[in-house]
Amino acid sequence: MKKLINSVDTVLTESLDGFCAAHADIVALGDDHKFVRRRALKPGKAALLSGGGSGHEPLHAGFVGHGMLDAACPGQVFTSPTPDQMLAAAQAIDGGGGILFIVKNYEGDVMNFDMAGEMAADLGIEVLTVRTNDDVAVDNSLYTTGRRGVAGTLVVEKIVGAAAESGIGVAALKALGDRVNDATRSMGVALTSCTVPAVGKPTFDIGDGEIEMGVGIHGEPGRRRVKLMPADTIVEEMVAAIAGDFEEKRGGDALLLVNGFGATPAMELYLVFNAAKKQLEKHGYRIARALVGNYVTSLDMAGCSITVTRLNDEADRYWAAPVHTPALRWGV
Amino acid sequence: MKKLINSVDTVLTESLDGFCAAHADIVALGDDHKFVRRRALKPGKAALLSGGGSGHEPLHAGFVGHGMLDAACPGQVFTSPTPDQMLAAAQAIDGGGGILFIVKNYEGDVMNFDMAGEMAADLGIEVLTVRTNDDVAVDNSLYTTGRRGVAGTLVVEKIVGAAAESGIGVAALKALGDRVNDATRSMGVALTSCTVPAVGKPTFDIGDGEIEMGVGIHGEPGRRRVKLMPADTIVEEMVAAIAGDFEEKRGGDALLLVNGFGATPAMELYLVFNAAKKQLEKHGYRIARALVGNYVTSLDMAGCSITVTRLNDEADRYWAAPVHTPALRWGV
Repeated sequence: MKKLINSVDTVLTESLDGFCAAHADIVALGDDHKFVRRRALKPGKAALLSGGGSGHEPLHAGFVGHGMLDAACPGQVFTSPTPDQMLAAAQAIDGGGGILFIVKNYEGDVMNFDMAGEMAADLGIEVLTVRTNDDVAVDNSLYTTGRRGVAGTLVVEKIVGAAAESGIGVAALKALGDRVNDATRSMGVALTSCTVPAVGKPTFDIGDGEIEMGVGIHGEPGRRRVKLMPADTIVEEMVAAIAGDFEEKRGGDALLLVNGFGATPAMELYLVFNAAKKQLEKHGYRIARALVGNYVTSLDMAGCSITVTRLNDEADRYWAAPVHTPALRWGV
Repeated sequence: MKKLINSVDTVLTESLDGFCAAHADIVALGDDHKFVRRRALKPGKAALLSGGGSGHEPLHAGFVGHGMLDAACPGQVFTSPTPDQMLAAAQAIDGGGGILFIVKNYEGDVMNFDMAGEMAADLGIEVLTVRTNDDVAVDNSLYTTGRRGVAGTLVVEKIVGAAAESGIGVAALKALGDRVNDATRSMGVALTSCTVPAVGKPTFDIGDGEIEMGVGIHGEPGRRRVKLMPADTIVEEMVAAIAGDFEEKRGGDALLLVNGFGATPAMELYLVFNAAKKQLEKHGYRIARALVGNYVTSLDMAGCSITVTRLNDEADRYWAAPVHTPALRWGV
């Protein structure tokens, strides 16, 4: 294992220190590295809290700031943060308007956020939860009952974050978050494995000429292991899986997110975007919004995911609204 | 070689098509994929043109837009664009205010931009050139006489781009670009090689426990091949090389850019930022501006570079000025 680290025990805290120093105008670090919070909180606003295992950067701390999350709890790599972290974050960001938890559907995250929600409720803080499960690849997985929450989570965080900024209450935010999650589908493909620092070797073995179709963001198995194919063929299968999974088959306006897993050159991501756009147009979609880059990563995995969100006027308006976070920024 | 491509012959054009489709609000593609230009040109403004081999994305096309470049010419991977491309771009963006070429110091780029400048002059277009050479690692290299131009190039493009937007003339822009280049130093380290699609195998061999200190952005040799060390030790050596190379030893306000080469997780880049900031503070610097991410890449190389620009009030103000490009965006 070759990594730019000092020791596996300090990689997370040293990285968080660097992150909060580099973005000190936007974020602040909680005590004991328990959470990253928005530096300028907005009293009375419903607050948004997310979190999960580290190794998916910039998700989630990179999305803390104006128009998106109020705080994010980083767990150890690919490990859920603790209820203690979540409660500390909830107390730090509670402005009296209630808190919405945005939780990717993995058993550890779901259990810990549920516990934190009960603890917060005992302190008189109203908590609701949106659970994301946009990955169409498989129905149950290594760490998941039901579908996995993957890159679509950032779309939920952006759209709900903009709504929260505009003063919408927590119950309406939960309903909006559920609608955006319902309108979102993703699928990934891996060319290589990732390597977790504390493990020191690749999470899975994969041959020189093989790819994992439908891989999870922790390197969980996907639908099938196949030989490397041309990008157009890979993308055609991914887009067909996504488009075919929507109940509504008519197409329409959509957001297309091509997300790199960490080790994929931008050149390849844009090539995939080009192929995915063409395929989606064949399915009747018009790509109204686009995002291409490393947003929900799997450490140093090579590969990418495709996410499609069906847009209505409300979702489109909130997507376009100003955002000022370390990893997404426009309009301010 | 595992890459998300259809064929090595079409990777560049398909990627450019995807790039221009994803960012159609900001950029437009020139005929025959010769260049990427700013969609909304500003008549009378001195225009900025850059370019170079592809494989370093988002450099340069990702920096086309308001407050930065007016056009960028993409060559084949790690290959200079042609004078013909540069002339077509110059003609497309010429608004009567002259054109500044920003050229990384590699022999092919220098020669071709010089030829294009002469061809443009024959057509009555005033052309001046800033040559970037911020890499302190080695004095001459595989493709370079003198020092290589690396990630510091984006700092020059940003600061000069903001000045151009404010209406500064081309001669003053050249002088500013030269000053920023003079105030900028970089050094890189590679953990793995990159793989050029048309070659199909890694550019260089490197052992499981080895790193290349001072690597170039095409995988050119650096200062020395050493065993993997803790990140703090690697960064200490890089920062000492950078700080020691400035004539002015007193430190002062600086911009710190930690740039990923393409396959380095964000977690490691922020850890390196944390270490570099501490080291620079020991050398008397105050980190007034920060940028962390994949900006000047080497395809799928793992590793990163550290860039330091000494800031005066003018450079700081232009750095902070609004920019709206695919890869850098703030203030708009």
